Amino acid sequence: MPIEFEQTFRNFLMEHQEKYNRTYHFLILMDSIITAAQRIELYYRTGALKGNLGMAGSINVQGESVMKMDDIANEIVLHYLAASNRVIQVVSEESDDIVDMNKDGGRYFVYFDPLDGSSNVAHGLPVGFLFGIAKRNLDGNMKGPEDFHLREGNDYIAAGMFVIPTGMFTLALRDAGCWRFHADETATYVKPMRMTLPDDPKKWELSFNSANTTVFSEKVQSWIQVNISKYKFRYIGALAGDFHRLLTNGGLFMYPAIVKHPDPKENRPQGKLRLLYEANVVAFMCREAGGDAIDETGTRIMEIKPAGHHQRTTLYVGSKPIIDELASLFKS
Amino acid sequence: MPIEFEQTFRNFLMEHQEKYNRTYHFLILMDSIITAAQRIELYYRTGALKGNLGMAGSINVQGESVMKMDDIANEIVLHYLAASNRVIQVVSEESDDIVDMNKDGGRYFVYFDPLDGSSNVAHGLPVGFLFGIAKRNLDGNMKGPEDFHLREGNDYIAAGMFVIPTGMFTLALRDAGCWRFHADETATYVKPMRMTLPDDPKKWELSFNSANTTVFSEKVQSWIQVNISKYKFRYIGALAGDFHRLLTNGGLFMYPAIVKHPDPKENRPQGKLRLLYEANVVAFMCREAGGDAIDETGTRIMEIKPAGHHQRTTLYVGSKPIIDELASLFKS
Amino acid sequence: MPIEFEQTFRNFLMEHQEKYNRTYHFLILMDSIITAAQRIELYYRTGALKGNLGMAGSINVQGESVMKMDDIANEIVLHYLAASNRVIQVVSEESDDIVDMNKDGGRYFVYFDPLDGSSNVAHGLPVGFLFGIAKRNLDGNMKGPEDFHLREGNDYIAAGMFVIPTGMFTLALRDAGCWRFHADETATYVKPMRMTLPDDPKKWELSFNSANTTVFSEKVQSWIQVNISKYKFRYIGALAGDFHRLLTNGGLFMYPAIVKHPDPKENRPQGKLRLLYEANVVAFMCREAGGDAIDETGTRIMEIKPAGHHQRTTLYVGSKPIIDELASLFKS
Amino acid sequence: MPIEFEQTFRNFLMEHQEKYNRTYHFLILMDSIITAAQRIELYYRTGALKGNLGMAGSINVQGESVMKMDDIANEIVLHYLAASNRVIQVVSEESDDIVDMNKDGGRYFVYFDPLDGSSNVAHGLPVGFLFGIAKRNLDGNMKGPEDFHLREGNDYIAAGMFVIPTGMFTLALRDAGCWRFHADETATYVKPMRMTLPDDPKKWELSFNSANTTVFSEKVQSWIQVNISKYKFRYIGALAGDFHRLLTNGGLFMYPAIVKHPDPKENRPQGKLRLLYEANVVAFMCREAGGDAIDETGTRIMEIKPAGHHQRTTLYVGSKPIIDELASLFKS
Repeated sequence: MPIEFEQTFRNFLMEHQEKYNRTYHFLILMDSIITAAQRIELYYRTGALKGNLGMAGSINVQGESVMKMDDIANEIVLHYLAASNRVIQVVSEESDDIVDMNKDGGRYFVYFDPLDGSSNVAHGLPVGFLFGIAKRNLDGNMKGPEDFHLREGNDYIAAGMFVIPTGMFTLALRDAGCWRFHADETATYVKPMRMTLPDDPKKWELSFNSANTTVFSEKVQSWIQVNISKYKFRYIGALAGDFHRLLTNGGLFMYPAIVKHPDPKENRPQGKLRLLYEANVVAFMCREAGGDAIDETGTRIMEIKPAGHHQRTTLYVGSKPIIDELASLFKS
Repeated sequence: MPIEFEQTFRNFLMEHQEKYNRTYHFLILMDSIITAAQRIELYYRTGALKGNLGMAGSINVQGESVMKMDDIANEIVLHYLAASNRVIQVVSEESDDIVDMNKDGGRYFVYFDPLDGSSNVAHGLPVGFLFGIAKRNLDGNMKGPEDFHLREGNDYIAAGMFVIPTGMFTLALRDAGCWRFHADETATYVKPMRMTLPDDPKKWELSFNSANTTVFSEKVQSWIQVNISKYKFRYIGALAGDFHRLLTNGGLFMYPAIVKHPDPKENRPQGKLRLLYEANVVAFMCREAGGDAIDETGTRIMEIKPAGHHQRTTLYVGSKPIIDELASLFKS
Repeated sequence: MPIEFEQTFRNFLMEHQEKYNRTYHFLILMDSIITAAQRIELYYRTGALKGNLGMAGSINVQGESVMKMDDIANEIVLHYLAASNRVIQVVSEESDDIVDMNKDGGRYFVYFDPLDGSSNVAHGLPVGFLFGIAKRNLDGNMKGPEDFHLREGNDYIAAGMFVIPTGMFTLALRDAGCWRFHADETATYVKPMRMTLPDDPKKWELSFNSANTTVFSEKVQSWIQVNISKYKFRYIGALAGDFHRLLTNGGLFMYPAIVKHPDPKENRPQGKLRLLYEANVVAFMCREAGGDAIDETGTRIMEIKPAGHHQRTTLYVGSKPIIDELASLFKS
Repeated sequence: MPIEFEQTFRNFLMEHQEKYNRTYHFLILMDSIITAAQRIELYYRTGALKGNLGMAGSINVQGESVMKMDDIANEIVLHYLAASNRVIQVVSEESDDIVDMNKDGGRYFVYFDPLDGSSNVAHGLPVGFLFGIAKRNLDGNMKGPEDFHLREGNDYIAAGMFVIPTGMFTLALRDAGCWRFHADETATYVKPMRMTLPDDPKKWELSFNSANTTVFSEKVQSWIQVNISKYKFRYIGALAGDFHRLLTNGGLFMYPAIVKHPDPKENRPQGKLRLLYEANVVAFMCREAGGDAIDETGTRIMEIKPAGHHQRTTLYVGSKPIIDELASLFKS
């Protein structure tokens, strides 16, 4: 009876580190991230029965009401990142301020959203744990601008996401591709599959919040009018879930500026998604999968210099031909 | 340490049967359906590693290419329904013809879609197992029209769905409400929660395939234009997944007729979803949750007399105020 | 890819009930017993991490210190038996008195040890949940002697045991054999395998507490001296674990009288194991597997008329040739 | 709701490595050992249903018939040790010869028994995966005697065992204690608990194959006669299972020489257990837990210079007072 052996994630990463002559510190950081993701999935699975999937009532920095699960997920990620002893500072969607960890001995900055897609939590539908990693500049010290935690996407060395409860985990490594892993029956991530956006437009899909169509800019509304029927359409309402699918099907996920809302207070010219731990993460992964990402000025997401750690941005991420078309539209 | 005991599904159903003086046969049928659902979830979870989530290449009756998982799911449901010895005949989306089982001793007709939302399979995103149940008319014999398998929705005694891999199962029982259960850590369905569509429009959501907006009828396009920005918008692309969420949030899920396609061959005036094992199932559950469902003529889905077992229909299902508004629009 | 379908326990039991024209009430009772066993296994598996495997400190009726897990297991079994609504009264090792449940509508008496083998709990080693079932005499009423809860083993209609954490469950049904089931990946008991003690003495084993050899009766010590090297020897220290193995290998499990202890207060001429929920259970299962069971007077265990619900007995259970040999030895 | 965080095994080991200024290579080796153990447990759990727990029919080097599970377990451990790239050579109970792996770059020799306690396999009762680790002498090269794979126990740097299916894993590190870990609900080993044999004789137990009592040496038989009733008695028949329990309860596990068998061919003066991957492993762990281990000449197990990689030994392992008493008895 031949036993099927799939390559484990850790073995894949070890080979990667040794191929690029990198240290094992990154292995230890990734172990802590995987342990955190598995614990979030455990709480999510049993959440419905332990009342975790109800409204917690407390307000987070983003003005949305925070689900209990967001608190739990945040506490879990903070705990395991700190225990790894490899992290200098972290920026989390669920923490108002930057969180200090091992400021002296740490090697990495981590930017994460512990539970993306809160509205899906109550239904047990897909949510995500997104993260981006930048490295301390070992030559300079903490004071130098390059080491300052507010790093642009181009400075990240890795980015990834867990889509819960699909049991799938995708990790992109700088200049080394975007890879998807599956949790097997022993909860071990195995079977690295390289993710490359398909070239065939017939496979592409569009994903955006149709309810906002009438409050996007004129340019965006007209682009939608022309293209809406060319591609399949899906919108799960969780960035991680929709982008997870887009990495296989290609096409475009967008969260445009809201500029024509009947109630001006509801307008969001700067967009809704956060730069450091949402837009940069999917942009980094998309680039490693052969795609690209821009904001509504046509600027590459990963070239935006962050001014604040919860800074928002508009986001257009997906197959290069569509992104290039939109970039020239926005710059025209 | 107080032990938390949640009521099991079986205990809930036993109380229901005894309250309405019904037999235990229905318990045995439901056991076989749950066993089938758990086995589909097992194959779905390990599918990615065993290559089950790839394209199988064979074409099913609906003209879409059949995923391997559809075949597996169909074989599983057919096996356990037959083993229950309680089923006369079944109609399945994956079987061209009606499938005979225990034509003499059986008590129930079962209409099911073993794996709804095939396009989500490759990503491990939500899919569904939908089923409706009608009962043999015990006074008459198999020959009488009432016993003929082509029963209208009003004749169903129960309908339900499993949304995989959320671990949640929803069952509606005629005149006894719509109930959601969660699989606990021992894979036992527990904690019956009554589902009632919320009255507050602020919670409602719209769910339809935006890519088709320009090919719907004029009436539908204008309705969308007016209402699109009133409600949140979600579209997972799997009826079970979208309807699962709607049962909590309320609002409208719709699959309108396609009548204005640039390529006339692509028009679907009769709609895409199947009456017996998709539209009737969600219509029955929605009614028990205080909502309603109509087709694009304003006719109640559950009053449509089926002419063929794979018959299609347009579908508008959700909160009564919206359905009533659409019904009068369509009848005007 | 042919899908492997194993017969489920419930389907096996349904066929049994219908073959012997019995009601579905027994199905509902067995469902509650399986649900209880799965919950005990859940607490046992996670016990080590939640401090359940420590000493609880409270003393039970048997003079041993009660592990927390015993309390938990007892509460679980009592809960689900009561929820089945099919049980008149129960006798449990962990409850001083007889526990009343549905005295009017109930149909069954249940005798159980919720957690056999407490000393193995701290190590995560095998423990057991043993149960025996007798039925109300439907003609007479509760007052008649036949209905009185103190029934002899011959009156049982079924007996069985779960060995945790092996995931195996064995059930014997009166005059219908002894059957073993395995929990598959969906936690469903499947694949009924008929258990028959092997005739070949080379497969047989001896199982008893060697530490007590010098305090058994002369007859027993001499029998051991002659036979000890004839068979393999195992002693897990949990009746369920040792008997579970004996049902496959055959041979003899014994818990003799202690009559020659240096400290007379430690003598146990009446034996240690309890008649109603330990000795009768393994005796009933052994008989259905082709073996037999006696006490140290040579009397068949299942013919002993119980005087008290926690009554003890000596126990010799296993392959008929050995039991017959011992019976004549004890009666000589 | 305070979240309970237990220290993970990996975090424990990382702290250990950094405290003793050791490299991360040992972390990578231990990861591969844990991955192998989890895969063995998966096959063991589902084994019963896939016919893995039957007799394979092929004979291994030890003259016993090999269970299929032994083959599977061996293949699994060999695969993951090789994939770690850290192992020079291995000695396995299931492989006749020494197995070469990374002879140039490897750092460790590994001695293992992939599935100890074959006779328990068919019943789903406890089995074990035992391993010992010695390190290449980095100064010398492969030729030097110190580097030769036949290393004595004192040369090991670590030894440990998984007892399946208890979900518990025990690891001893040279001069750093013996530690037990539990697999939590996410299959992550957590909660390091230091294991120290208890001093109180009332907790001690005796564990040996009583069936062989009459074929041990006179000295051993008389020792048993005097001591048998002083301690509790258990014998699961799997070294890992019995030693797992002894690490908590203290006392003595012994596998004496067989010298007085009626059939001289069955005598085993050199003992049954293997020195490199059974006796040394439990001896190393016992010493780190405050106990000791000798053979029937009174020689310390870990001081025996191995002559062959499948060499056998007699074994007496447990609490120091008993071992010292036996050592002087054997040397007298």
